[in-house]
Amino acid sequence: MSEKRTRVAVAGASGYIGGELLRLLLDHPYVEVVLATSDSFAGKRVHNPHPNLRGRTELAFSPHDSLGDAADLDVLFLAMPHGHTMKKMPWYLQRAGVVVDLGGDFRLRDPAGYPRYYGTEHPAPELLSSFVTGLPEWHRDELRTADRIAVPGCMATAGILTVRPLAEAGLLDGPVQVDARTGSSGSGAAAGSANLHAERSGAMRVFAPTQHRHEAEIAQATGLPVHMTATGVEAVRGVQVLCRAPLAGGVREADVRAAYRKAYAEEPFVRVVAQRTGVYRLPEPKILAGSNYCDVGFSVAGDGSQVVLVGALDNLVKGGAGSAVQALNVRFGWPETTGLSFPGLHPN
Amino acid sequence: MSEKRTRVAVAGASGYIGGELLRLLLDHPYVEVVLATSDSFAGKRVHNPHPNLRGRTELAFSPHDSLGDAADLDVLFLAMPHGHTMKKMPWYLQRAGVVVDLGGDFRLRDPAGYPRYYGTEHPAPELLSSFVTGLPEWHRDELRTADRIAVPGCMATAGILTVRPLAEAGLLDGPVQVDARTGSSGSGAAAGSANLHAERSGAMRVFAPTQHRHEAEIAQATGLPVHMTATGVEAVRGVQVLCRAPLAGGVREADVRAAYRKAYAEEPFVRVVAQRTGVYRLPEPKILAGSNYCDVGFSVAGDGSQVVLVGALDNLVKGGAGSAVQALNVRFGWPETTGLSFPGLHPN
Amino acid sequence: MSEKRTRVAVAGASGYIGGELLRLLLDHPYVEVVLATSDSFAGKRVHNPHPNLRGRTELAFSPHDSLGDAADLDVLFLAMPHGHTMKKMPWYLQRAGVVVDLGGDFRLRDPAGYPRYYGTEHPAPELLSSFVTGLPEWHRDELRTADRIAVPGCMATAGILTVRPLAEAGLLDGPVQVDARTGSSGSGAAAGSANLHAERSGAMRVFAPTQHRHEAEIAQATGLPVHMTATGVEAVRGVQVLCRAPLAGGVREADVRAAYRKAYAEEPFVRVVAQRTGVYRLPEPKILAGSNYCDVGFSVAGDGSQVVLVGALDNLVKGGAGSAVQALNVRFGWPETTGLSFPGLHPN
Amino acid sequence: MSEKRTRVAVAGASGYIGGELLRLLLDHPYVEVVLATSDSFAGKRVHNPHPNLRGRTELAFSPHDSLGDAADLDVLFLAMPHGHTMKKMPWYLQRAGVVVDLGGDFRLRDPAGYPRYYGTEHPAPELLSSFVTGLPEWHRDELRTADRIAVPGCMATAGILTVRPLAEAGLLDGPVQVDARTGSSGSGAAAGSANLHAERSGAMRVFAPTQHRHEAEIAQATGLPVHMTATGVEAVRGVQVLCRAPLAGGVREADVRAAYRKAYAEEPFVRVVAQRTGVYRLPEPKILAGSNYCDVGFSVAGDGSQVVLVGALDNLVKGGAGSAVQALNVRFGWPETTGLSFPGLHPN
Repeated sequence: MSEKRTRVAVAGASGYIGGELLRLLLDHPYVEVVLATSDSFAGKRVHNPHPNLRGRTELAFSPHDSLGDAADLDVLFLAMPHGHTMKKMPWYLQRAGVVVDLGGDFRLRDPAGYPRYYGTEHPAPELLSSFVTGLPEWHRDELRTADRIAVPGCMATAGILTVRPLAEAGLLDGPVQVDARTGSSGSGAAAGSANLHAERSGAMRVFAPTQHRHEAEIAQATGLPVHMTATGVEAVRGVQVLCRAPLAGGVREADVRAAYRKAYAEEPFVRVVAQRTGVYRLPEPKILAGSNYCDVGFSVAGDGSQVVLVGALDNLVKGGAGSAVQALNVRFGWPETTGLSFPGLHPN
Repeated sequence: MSEKRTRVAVAGASGYIGGELLRLLLDHPYVEVVLATSDSFAGKRVHNPHPNLRGRTELAFSPHDSLGDAADLDVLFLAMPHGHTMKKMPWYLQRAGVVVDLGGDFRLRDPAGYPRYYGTEHPAPELLSSFVTGLPEWHRDELRTADRIAVPGCMATAGILTVRPLAEAGLLDGPVQVDARTGSSGSGAAAGSANLHAERSGAMRVFAPTQHRHEAEIAQATGLPVHMTATGVEAVRGVQVLCRAPLAGGVREADVRAAYRKAYAEEPFVRVVAQRTGVYRLPEPKILAGSNYCDVGFSVAGDGSQVVLVGALDNLVKGGAGSAVQALNVRFGWPETTGLSFPGLHPN
Repeated sequence: MSEKRTRVAVAGASGYIGGELLRLLLDHPYVEVVLATSDSFAGKRVHNPHPNLRGRTELAFSPHDSLGDAADLDVLFLAMPHGHTMKKMPWYLQRAGVVVDLGGDFRLRDPAGYPRYYGTEHPAPELLSSFVTGLPEWHRDELRTADRIAVPGCMATAGILTVRPLAEAGLLDGPVQVDARTGSSGSGAAAGSANLHAERSGAMRVFAPTQHRHEAEIAQATGLPVHMTATGVEAVRGVQVLCRAPLAGGVREADVRAAYRKAYAEEPFVRVVAQRTGVYRLPEPKILAGSNYCDVGFSVAGDGSQVVLVGALDNLVKGGAGSAVQALNVRFGWPETTGLSFPGLHPN
Repeated sequence: MSEKRTRVAVAGASGYIGGELLRLLLDHPYVEVVLATSDSFAGKRVHNPHPNLRGRTELAFSPHDSLGDAADLDVLFLAMPHGHTMKKMPWYLQRAGVVVDLGGDFRLRDPAGYPRYYGTEHPAPELLSSFVTGLPEWHRDELRTADRIAVPGCMATAGILTVRPLAEAGLLDGPVQVDARTGSSGSGAAAGSANLHAERSGAMRVFAPTQHRHEAEIAQATGLPVHMTATGVEAVRGVQVLCRAPLAGGVREADVRAAYRKAYAEEPFVRVVAQRTGVYRLPEPKILAGSNYCDVGFSVAGDGSQVVLVGALDNLVKGGAGSAVQALNVRFGWPETTGLSFPGLHPN
């Protein structure tokens, strides 16, 4: 393998987000995965917890502490459990020139958000402002030079990409009601009995009627009050947000469409899906599995008083590993779609 | 079979609602199903389209016109496609002393609702006020003497049972946002290619972002402005409504709970499910399949500004055939739970 | 509640089979559930792990040891983990006049089966012959007086009911190949990460290509060599067995149908489903969820050399709790279908 | 787009196989899709029936007859309904230098197979021997020069890849019992009411207990008698075959493994998956969706008398469009994995 490749490591590589990072990075032409850490799978091949990678690589997991000995790491991806990196970030920052955190510990800029949404004071509030949000659609320029990147949450990414264009254009007048639906992979590979197939199958589980952490991220990115509810529905991958907000006086459907076009016309991974007819006339996560697309759409109520916005993505790709790789591409000046071209499947 | 049994007929008995009526009525101790009509299955045994009824009855389908010759019918259940009974109701009213319509044609009291939500003027507006809503929880006294009963829509039933207690108690201050999720059986046995398994499986299909017909029913029953969105999710049976509304000043969680208790403490088929913990702490349709329960629950936002209400039921039972049989029990003075005791399954 | 009711206890009542026993027994007109044991849920209401029972009973779980103090128990149902009752059966036999074991520890008559299929010598081989198989279709007379009943495994019940009529009639010439498919509830409420929704959803998991324990039960009941494979497929409830065997010389389709009719014409819970056309022309578990039916069917290969047999049931009902209650009804001389009349749902 | 690209057309491009061909060919670096025919979608963009292709191409459907005017076609893929190409093949052969038929009309070499399995005499039996089977693993050399290619059926491909190595090595002694399971996409986009979500969801539908057409293909490729049964299970994509056969005397597990290694050690798209432990120790279709892999595995019964073989693939990819593109790569001397590198997803 070429010496010129950028050397990357994935910490917490045996989880679902870690596995998705490996899937994308192992096929990425400009990087070399030199380390994948997992204490529970140390010494085992990566295809052990990630069977789709069988025959794709000889890579095996290393103990998490082996990060301490890793030399010449260019990039370190952190796919650790929530609450872990906020305590150890200074140590991680010494491991590589560029650190990309896929957890929730450095997503909020305002330290006050942590007691409210994470139930704890942030132990390193001084570091929060040094992280750039790993969402190229809204932070591309900052990302070109960012050494500390915090990738938003899966439902937050869908919510931000769906609501922000209208917020920026001043089309919304009042709070946003976000109804988020998510597949079971969002609970991670370490989920417990609540996520047994027999309990989770066919569920419509309102697991966070209020106060979900991603609510804070959407409010932070849009500057609007947000009331979010999260429901687990039957799917393994996939997040859909259905957002409602009152429209400012005189705003028409054409204004909404124009705001999306202005924001996303040149974006490789955001598609505006808002047709009058058709089975897939609004964003549908089921056709996005494995892809890095976030589809966004809208419908204005008959009386024009409010707009219904819909966003959809694969929580493990555009809602996590995919956005991280897209941000990596931006940071290193590679074509932004490198390694992210899979279109998704239909039927699926 | 005893001559004393009440003689009932089911028109449109080969559909999903019709099949569910047959399942409940064939095991009902006080009725005799004397006629089940279906032109497409005329002459075939009822277990042909309803395989769960194999070995339960010798009943076969009769052509729809055979209703004209049916003698001594006490009750006629109409499970016809929307738009049919509004044209033919006068004829049906001559067929039996009690007519129970499970379609949408006589649910709205205000004729103006039909052009807006059904896209047509109602051909018999003078009949609308003669129908009693087939929802015993809110119309029990009227139902005791009702000869014309209109059963609410599946999502409407969930929405009304969930929102109305708070509306009646004056706890809500402003419009209600209803996010309704439904399984595929709501589309009926005659659904087209959009409901092929490969297209519908694992879907989060926002098929009615605005203007769903059931929105009008919820507004009619609660007296509040309602903005409803309908999404098809992965399930065969099951409806869940997630409703948000601003709370009136000073309203506390205890007031919400008290309003539900006041409305439903004595109800056999409405359970208040609002726990702090547990996988099933809020209403979940998956455990209600086949049962006549509607579970309702709530969660007040941290700042007390709004309440999130959740309702769940089986769209074919409490959202259709079950409410119809419950209304029948009320109308004829039988124990209200007769034939409706199945508790639902877990796991399922 | 009438003092005359038969007093029953369920040991291991927080599991899926235990929950199904409670669902059936709580609605059974001739029994009273006086005790339900679970150490992990001791003191909690039974609807805690079994949300479908909310509002159906005030019953709470007792610690398992409380069985030692239970007075006047008529019947004890054992829904304990495999390997438990073989060690403690003598103690359980002192707890009640009639003991019904739903685990695997007393299903095989030949002690030699335990080392081979359970990986252990049976600690109480002398007790094996004292248990009657809890399958009324083939052991009804013995059950009328049985005080020790061992209910067959879920896939075994389907296999036995499907194959035995042909075996008894001497229609089969050679070994039986059994391909068994099962839903996830068969793994129980204590299943681990292999049964997380994200891993188990949509699976076709060949978890026992050979040597499954139920293979021994089918061989024991049919007297034929059996090669069984077990695959987990996407379903919560439901077992289907597809069995292939060479037909003895000159055997025709009519002989197969006659053998089934002879065996099951009078059986309330076995239906022969073998039509030439129709979506449900062969047994389908999805319409049997919650019901006590086992549907059996067949198709003879064009050249008449072999027959394909299909059996389907709900693994928690006819494959467990339902057969146990049916056996109870036989044992106490109650109408055999008491408490077991739910027909199943379509669509579902 | 470079003039040098190979010009390909897809006939019947609005179906599921057609859509998968478009997904693979539109991203293929050496081909240009110049024509996609569909009468029902003529004039509409390809993303209309294939929403995953939105934003990937400007291509629109042309009427099927437009094939007659297509100039300079290098390759014509036929994804037409079964029974169509056997009548029109001479006309299609004039449309392009290389014709790849993905239907069943030219898969069998022996004309006698058509009356038996397709219920009709083949109208052009003289053409049958001119087609090369589109399965590179077993026909690579022929494919290098083939102008007429017939891609095997989805279940046939799985069966052939799973059984043939042992057959070639003479390890099997007697007939092969094939139990094939398939997802709903195998029924195609034009499927009828039997494939409505409410009917097909969670099904275990034995739709072909005997006489399935793919049985003939497996027998043809292995030279062994084959008894195949086909069951529809809950999945959109995915085929799994479970094959049982008696082992020849003295054959050991090591011989089976060696036979697979000999056949597939160098194959890019066949992986031998036969571990002693692990959730994915045998082939599982759910992780193969979108990939071109066929995983094969095995387990020898304890007494060594028979072997259980398991094969899995995505019916629309390795079971159809993927094998077709792989054959195209072989035919034109391109790297065989070109355009087929997607590894599949986990979890999924």
